[in-house]
Amino acid sequence: MRVTVSRKAHFNAAHRLYRPDWDTAQNQAIFGKCSNPHFHGHNYELIVSITGAIDPETGYVMDMKVLKDLIKDEVEDAFDHKNLNEQVPEFKSLNPTAENIVVVIYNKLRPHIAATNDLEVVLYETPRNFVKYNGQ
Amino acid sequence: MRVTVSRKAHFNAAHRLYRPDWDTAQNQAIFGKCSNPHFHGHNYELIVSITGAIDPETGYVMDMKVLKDLIKDEVEDAFDHKNLNEQVPEFKSLNPTAENIVVVIYNKLRPHIAATNDLEVVLYETPRNFVKYNGQ
Amino acid sequence: MRVTVSRKAHFNAAHRLYRPDWDTAQNQAIFGKCSNPHFHGHNYELIVSITGAIDPETGYVMDMKVLKDLIKDEVEDAFDHKNLNEQVPEFKSLNPTAENIVVVIYNKLRPHIAATNDLEVVLYETPRNFVKYNGQ
Amino acid sequence: MRVTVSRKAHFNAAHRLYRPDWDTAQNQAIFGKCSNPHFHGHNYELIVSITGAIDPETGYVMDMKVLKDLIKDEVEDAFDHKNLNEQVPEFKSLNPTAENIVVVIYNKLRPHIAATNDLEVVLYETPRNFVKYNGQ
Amino acid sequence: MRVTVSRKAHFNAAHRLYRPDWDTAQNQAIFGKCSNPHFHGHNYELIVSITGAIDPETGYVMDMKVLKDLIKDEVEDAFDHKNLNEQVPEFKSLNPTAENIVVVIYNKLRPHIAATNDLEVVLYETPRNFVKYNGQ
Amino acid sequence: MRVTVSRKAHFNAAHRLYRPDWDTAQNQAIFGKCSNPHFHGHNYELIVSITGAIDPETGYVMDMKVLKDLIKDEVEDAFDHKNLNEQVPEFKSLNPTAENIVVVIYNKLRPHIAATNDLEVVLYETPRNFVKYNGQ
Repeated sequence: MRVTVSRKAHFNAAHRLYRPDWDTAQNQAIFGKCSNPHFHGHNYELIVSITGAIDPETGYVMDMKVLKDLIKDEVEDAFDHKNLNEQVPEFKSLNPTAENIVVVIYNKLRPHIAATNDLEVVLYETPRNFVKYNGQ
Repeated sequence: MRVTVSRKAHFNAAHRLYRPDWDTAQNQAIFGKCSNPHFHGHNYELIVSITGAIDPETGYVMDMKVLKDLIKDEVEDAFDHKNLNEQVPEFKSLNPTAENIVVVIYNKLRPHIAATNDLEVVLYETPRNFVKYNGQ
Repeated sequence: MRVTVSRKAHFNAAHRLYRPDWDTAQNQAIFGKCSNPHFHGHNYELIVSITGAIDPETGYVMDMKVLKDLIKDEVEDAFDHKNLNEQVPEFKSLNPTAENIVVVIYNKLRPHIAATNDLEVVLYETPRNFVKYNGQ
Repeated sequence: MRVTVSRKAHFNAAHRLYRPDWDTAQNQAIFGKCSNPHFHGHNYELIVSITGAIDPETGYVMDMKVLKDLIKDEVEDAFDHKNLNEQVPEFKSLNPTAENIVVVIYNKLRPHIAATNDLEVVLYETPRNFVKYNGQ
Repeated sequence: MRVTVSRKAHFNAAHRLYRPDWDTAQNQAIFGKCSNPHFHGHNYELIVSITGAIDPETGYVMDMKVLKDLIKDEVEDAFDHKNLNEQVPEFKSLNPTAENIVVVIYNKLRPHIAATNDLEVVLYETPRNFVKYNGQ
Repeated sequence: MRVTVSRKAHFNAAHRLYRPDWDTAQNQAIFGKCSNPHFHGHNYELIVSITGAIDPETGYVMDMKVLKDLIKDEVEDAFDHKNLNEQVPEFKSLNPTAENIVVVIYNKLRPHIAATNDLEVVLYETPRNFVKYNGQ
């Protein structure tokens, strides 16, 4: 009997889509206004979901307070009010598309989740665009 | 060809997280302010999803009005404006965590859903915390 | 490593639930007020999700602008501000239930999505009723 | 000491924007695709707000259950799953723009609200377009 | 030139509608299931709005972090995960209707807001029922 | 008889809170992490409201398509995917707080609105923080 528990969180950040090995024209052709060299930004909304057995002692799959604190330590403190390209090491050589950001977040959280539990991360870049990754 | 149909519903209830076989200090240590002996409460939002084949006669997987009435009979009438610990029999000896509530709701609905259809229940305890169960 | 990218869109349309081979009484008995011969309508909200590998060059599973334009060409231009029963060819002989609409949308989009990618379509008929189809 | 109490409700309806004293070309020029002769439709969301003194006996400005029932009787039963142009008498000779609908709803509700209380009606035609009227 | 700044917050609480000077039958007749003696509960959502001149030095009407901390100190710490009737002094002899709660919150916040600024408080008891008070 | 019509729009932008005549320590003391010299960003959501008489010919206060295009020309094209501090002339010497942004937007739109109509602008910097300005 496996239940999924989910927690919403959020962070605000600046970014641009850009490959340093492409010239300006090619970056502009592929990434359009998202490649603006002065950056733009988003309110990223995050949903982290853990699937596992209910602990019969507590009735919890995972204590939501522990999950909330984990997201704060690993994601919010690292990304909030930051420039992803300039200030977050994972994106020094990785283009911060929503797809790449959600994989980075998954990889930061995965070691802190019990091995018997599954992890899925949903990241809203805007209320209209979002991505999902579950490690598969 | 299987399609999923989903219906939202809601109920308001009081609860506390608590194990009678633990003393106050242990309940407080594990459940924190959720263990307040005077109770607190939530607007629970519910999404019930049925997956199955489309009936070629009606174009329905399941008539939404039937599903709406089923949720009212089995969940809203039983839980709405109630104290889950004190007034809902399923939680007399079961801690009303979101995880346990979603399993109880699933088990109340499952017998009323066609055996060839799948059932999934999502329960929002707050807009930021939610759980999901599909019987597996 | 497969990631899902999702895009929201919307259209407003009129419809009625109705089978021409049934008489008025039978249509009314099965479809209730949804069978009103003068039609009623909805703001349909749509979520189209594509699952596939991240292109290591761009960091995209699929360019969201391309997906946005595809939804506009195939769905919004065909359905928006239309009477589904009267003006959309797919529903000339198919009852426009939410279930049938979501399958039609899936079938319109599927040929335009890379064969190695998966497609899922969610359609909200109202904020409280929605359906999902992924081709299985 | 005046407090405002608000209640949300909703109805689904078909309509078209159209003046019978204009020809098709003029209707099309002014109302665009909203003038489609086959109709289109919306999920209208409604917020009805009453401002007045708190009754010291009950702690209510107005009993929300009474307000909910009033909206059902006067608005939902009259408009839901209807074609506004064809089936709602108020729009036989009045173009059902959002502005005109919100004034009609206000005028239907106003006689049932205590004369010492203020009434305001907000009507969402879509999640992105809405109108407000308070009788002034 | 006056601008309004608004901040959302939330708390979860149990309550019942009840007058001790009425017998059970009268409480039940007026307050219905909201008078359940075992309590029920809500996720209250709060919007606090301050209207005033923009400080030309900072570009702020009021620092949002200061407002966020004020709401936490005066409202969230006092009400969150509490039983309003049993544990919040203001409701020892005041029926905790949404109307009375919003006035209590206003009165707790008002002394901490600059006298030249206006204050308005909106309180959602559910996503469908809400109240507003601005001291007039 | 005056009715308000409202239209939602959105843009994504980077910014920092910063006064060039203050040193880094003072900017940091007053604006905290919002003063990060590498910028951060937001999905700004905008609600533009026009209040006026209903034109008896059209049933419109203002054609929503005209309002939508006006917001696109004056606000979205000027701010979307931009760095407000670096690329938007109005903020060359004005700190881009939410308060200052909403006044700038109001001033850009006001000349295009009929003099007999009122204008109000609401700007969400995040789903939890928003500001409002109506020219008074």
